[in-house]
Amino acid sequence: MKSNKKSALKENDGIPQPESISTSSLQKIVAKRKVQPSVNELISGILQHDKIALSRAITLIESTNPEHFEKANEIINGCLPYANQSVRIGITGVPGVGKSTFIEAFGTYLTSIGKKVAVLAVDPSSTISHGSILGDKTRMEELVKDENAFIRPSASGETLGGVARKTRETIILCEAAGFDTIIIETVGVGQSETAVHSMVDFFLLLKIAGAGDELQGIKRGIMEMADTIVINKADGDNVAKAKLAKTEFNRALHLFPAKNSGWIPKVTTCSAYEKTGIDSVWNIIAEYLELVKNNDYFNAKRQNQNQYWMLETINEQLKNHFYTNPSIASSLENYKTQVATNQISPFAAAQELLKKYFE
Amino acid sequence: MKSNKKSALKENDGIPQPESISTSSLQKIVAKRKVQPSVNELISGILQHDKIALSRAITLIESTNPEHFEKANEIINGCLPYANQSVRIGITGVPGVGKSTFIEAFGTYLTSIGKKVAVLAVDPSSTISHGSILGDKTRMEELVKDENAFIRPSASGETLGGVARKTRETIILCEAAGFDTIIIETVGVGQSETAVHSMVDFFLLLKIAGAGDELQGIKRGIMEMADTIVINKADGDNVAKAKLAKTEFNRALHLFPAKNSGWIPKVTTCSAYEKTGIDSVWNIIAEYLELVKNNDYFNAKRQNQNQYWMLETINEQLKNHFYTNPSIASSLENYKTQVATNQISPFAAAQELLKKYFE
Repeated sequence: MKSNKKSALKENDGIPQPESISTSSLQKIVAKRKVQPSVNELISGILQHDKIALSRAITLIESTNPEHFEKANEIINGCLPYANQSVRIGITGVPGVGKSTFIEAFGTYLTSIGKKVAVLAVDPSSTISHGSILGDKTRMEELVKDENAFIRPSASGETLGGVARKTRETIILCEAAGFDTIIIETVGVGQSETAVHSMVDFFLLLKIAGAGDELQGIKRGIMEMADTIVINKADGDNVAKAKLAKTEFNRALHLFPAKNSGWIPKVTTCSAYEKTGIDSVWNIIAEYLELVKNNDYFNAKRQNQNQYWMLETINEQLKNHFYTNPSIASSLENYKTQVATNQISPFAAAQELLKKYFE
Repeated sequence: MKSNKKSALKENDGIPQPESISTSSLQKIVAKRKVQPSVNELISGILQHDKIALSRAITLIESTNPEHFEKANEIINGCLPYANQSVRIGITGVPGVGKSTFIEAFGTYLTSIGKKVAVLAVDPSSTISHGSILGDKTRMEELVKDENAFIRPSASGETLGGVARKTRETIILCEAAGFDTIIIETVGVGQSETAVHSMVDFFLLLKIAGAGDELQGIKRGIMEMADTIVINKADGDNVAKAKLAKTEFNRALHLFPAKNSGWIPKVTTCSAYEKTGIDSVWNIIAEYLELVKNNDYFNAKRQNQNQYWMLETINEQLKNHFYTNPSIASSLENYKTQVATNQISPFAAAQELLKKYFE
């Protein structure tokens, strides 16, 4: 069972996952890895929409080997001119709302109308839980076999910043590989929704009706980020409850200030299990895209996101460099205690640490 | 008229302020400043509850002179053992809700029940507007003459971080000077509420009824930070409207998740003008304090806030040091453009800039 300690979300724990990789698959992968393709081979493979080249390039992005880091950067910059022709959709929802089933149904619908769909994830807890999100591809049986779909579990990493960066870079490669619809899933651990929100064009919050008070257990700010709220499991006895929840959420959404996009968030119901209402989810997204492409919010937002990611990376690296400095690392805890117990002011403590660092 | 461009708040602009300092006062101040007291004199003055010593020490905190910076740090550390015996109350509300009148009535009530009240402000716009918040002390006629009150306008500064730091340090001095109730006002420009929220024990959101839809125009996250919402101007024809607003806000507050403090935010009405309902505001705060002192949330929160401020200061200084580096400053805009137009990936751009910096 995955630890949910860092999450402010209140709904049920997820279902424990079986091991996701079979031994025979593993052997095949290892065998294939023995021949390391060059950067140029990988780039041209990606541009020819080769999923194996794509997977290998993503593995370089996810690697902690500094040599791979250089290669990954070259591949990303090689793919960049061919990227960006896509819509990026963020999907969040706590465990139990049927996220995998929804993505299976939604992704399959999208490929049926001619889209090429890549499904990625941002799950900073995956180091501990061994990649529970999307790790169990058996829950996406149809989509995983779909020629026009590509599924990749979350990168693992110590920090959300690191995991998010890797996913952000993976988006570029997927787009260059011809995927025009990028779905990025997150389970909502820590600040992962904020990270996902800052890399997508459209943000979808998946909920279910009838889990007690509909509006409880929503993490701060998530409802405000949502461009649409989709109430899943609107099937059988649940249909009436889902409709009621729709009304509730519609009212709640009106409490928030208007979005800069000019878009008014919409609430809809669906059943991923019965595959009903999935088309209306896409219709909402299409309507959104028409609005924001016309008012140029779409481009402006992407440009801002790019700059935001540059600055975020800088800020993260500056902090890493500081906090991993041996002299800082060895004295930080001591300063923290002194500050907590008012033996030194927070500012004086900061000054002393900075002095150590810049010396 | 103050520019509200950075604010997401939607209510009326504030009332333009007259110059806050009279020529004769200025001459007195200048005359007094001629003799510069020593650090130890200032510390012992503060500990003897001398308001003039307090004011001078705050001036050192606010100074941009590096020599004063050292002195200020010594004074703060000298005062630190005598600080922290207080309740710190943050008050926010958009211009037009009667914040000054409320603080006047609330502060006067507090001194009438034996409290010693310091009123500070965080207003990063004050550089432009010449310190509109609290600058006009004539709006707090009674309080400014009150022996047991101390009013200090917002420090000015380029950044919110700088302004907030100065106010945070000023709190320590005010507490050492015997003030047991610290009120910190903010008008809600940019992220100033977040900054204030992270330095107070209790956060009060001041609103009025009947300004259109009660729930519109509330900046993201502010309602979630509020420990109480006080609806001001509940007088005359407004009483019924204020009661209705109270019901609305109560309902809205229930949409948010429970607070870590275990506190359930309360809504109340008052008339700062008629001085009615002011005692119930204090009663709510007293009730809150009893709860959080018993469950030890009060101390835990203050310790966290201290550590937060240390880390914030470090992070801010690291960024300052980077972005003011001449080589970075000269090439940053160019990289921003390249990143926005997808000529280089955000991560590659960040790496190049960091390489320049660490060389």
